[in-house]
Amino acid sequence: MVVKSEIKLVKNLQQKKYRNQHRLFVAEGYKTVQEVLSSGFTPKVLYSTDKNALPDHEDQITLITEKTLERMSGLKTPNKILGVFEIPKKITLPTNGWVIALDGVKDPGNMGTLIRLCDWFDIAHVVCSMDTVDCYNPKVVQATMGSIARVRVHYTDLTSFLLDFPGESYGAVLNGLPIQDTVFPKEGVLVLGSESHGISPGVQGSISHQISIPQIGRLSAESLNVATATAIFLHEIRRTQ
Amino acid sequence: MVVKSEIKLVKNLQQKKYRNQHRLFVAEGYKTVQEVLSSGFTPKVLYSTDKNALPDHEDQITLITEKTLERMSGLKTPNKILGVFEIPKKITLPTNGWVIALDGVKDPGNMGTLIRLCDWFDIAHVVCSMDTVDCYNPKVVQATMGSIARVRVHYTDLTSFLLDFPGESYGAVLNGLPIQDTVFPKEGVLVLGSESHGISPGVQGSISHQISIPQIGRLSAESLNVATATAIFLHEIRRTQ
Repeated sequence: MVVKSEIKLVKNLQQKKYRNQHRLFVAEGYKTVQEVLSSGFTPKVLYSTDKNALPDHEDQITLITEKTLERMSGLKTPNKILGVFEIPKKITLPTNGWVIALDGVKDPGNMGTLIRLCDWFDIAHVVCSMDTVDCYNPKVVQATMGSIARVRVHYTDLTSFLLDFPGESYGAVLNGLPIQDTVFPKEGVLVLGSESHGISPGVQGSISHQISIPQIGRLSAESLNVATATAIFLHEIRRTQ
Repeated sequence: MVVKSEIKLVKNLQQKKYRNQHRLFVAEGYKTVQEVLSSGFTPKVLYSTDKNALPDHEDQITLITEKTLERMSGLKTPNKILGVFEIPKKITLPTNGWVIALDGVKDPGNMGTLIRLCDWFDIAHVVCSMDTVDCYNPKVVQATMGSIARVRVHYTDLTSFLLDFPGESYGAVLNGLPIQDTVFPKEGVLVLGSESHGISPGVQGSISHQISIPQIGRLSAESLNVATATAIFLHEIRRTQ
């Protein structure tokens, strides 16, 4: 039996302030919960409408009705399982290797895809400005496909971070040095701005290089999506090393 | 005054069968409608709750109430403007240049991002299997950011298309030749499969080369998102030419 206050707590975890207060986040649906579990996150509680949904975690499952799941869920069509997981403890900011810095990225889908890309290209740390979307937002968690457990995401003042980081910094802008003319060092920071406003002027001032992905041919598209641009930048950084 | 049957028609255009029947599609919200208009699509009718929403198209706007917009809209939070546009006439399949072929891509966001990428990299044609998501799905239209008007999207039997196309074909797979060891010709087809099942066996048999984006380091991420993988492939195709 799940009490009212418990339902309310889970529902509240859709909001950042409650996630930060309780240091907990939610993952929903069989595939996402499975990915988060197998990536090593500690479940606080696993709710399911089906006792046999996760054979390896049967003892940890709290059986609930469809109606209770609907009340807890942030999805329009809830899908059998909802897991509540512990947010890992904060760790110190990276000081070497390649790091991705995000300045005001707002779209949860883009953020999730970015974290998945970092996992693919072996980037261990993403450092975000305080106004970047929370990485434990349920939509971000879903879009990372489990990569959220393998990439560390930090929130801090980006300008200070860039000033303290010993390596070079590269800002993705519209009219910078073409990426194919850029020689990337062994370590550095790649800074990506928000989908609508780019990199903020304050952060821009702390970046040593401005780089771009040149458009081909008719020059008609306004810009690239931040996640697809990052894919190309990370491919080039790894390809040229 | 907008009559009931007109509201029903617009609402029905959320569905593919009605779009095909009427050869019309819907774009919603100020930014998307503006993009579609400036990209050269012909509006059949522009509905707005604000007569001054589009100063250049004031004469074409049909003023409606918030309530009517809510009934027409496919969005949870309708945003002032909804345009109904004509679907362009079908044109013949491409027989040269670089072409993107999509085999069963289902996610509207990915499809839209793919079309936007083609626009950026000057790819004029996308050829889709019949089970690929409709490019005039409102979510696709929104994700293309106007690029839908500049890239031609075809739906056909992919196997026949690949057999007829004179150039080489390259399939994006998980264990193919690493992309950096691939020498791309001046023209060809890049085939991308569905997000969950990859390229179907039937289509696979008609592809001459299998290529991959190698994962770096820990080999933990399961796969790349189809749109981010396409970004890297298109960048490499254009970079090496």
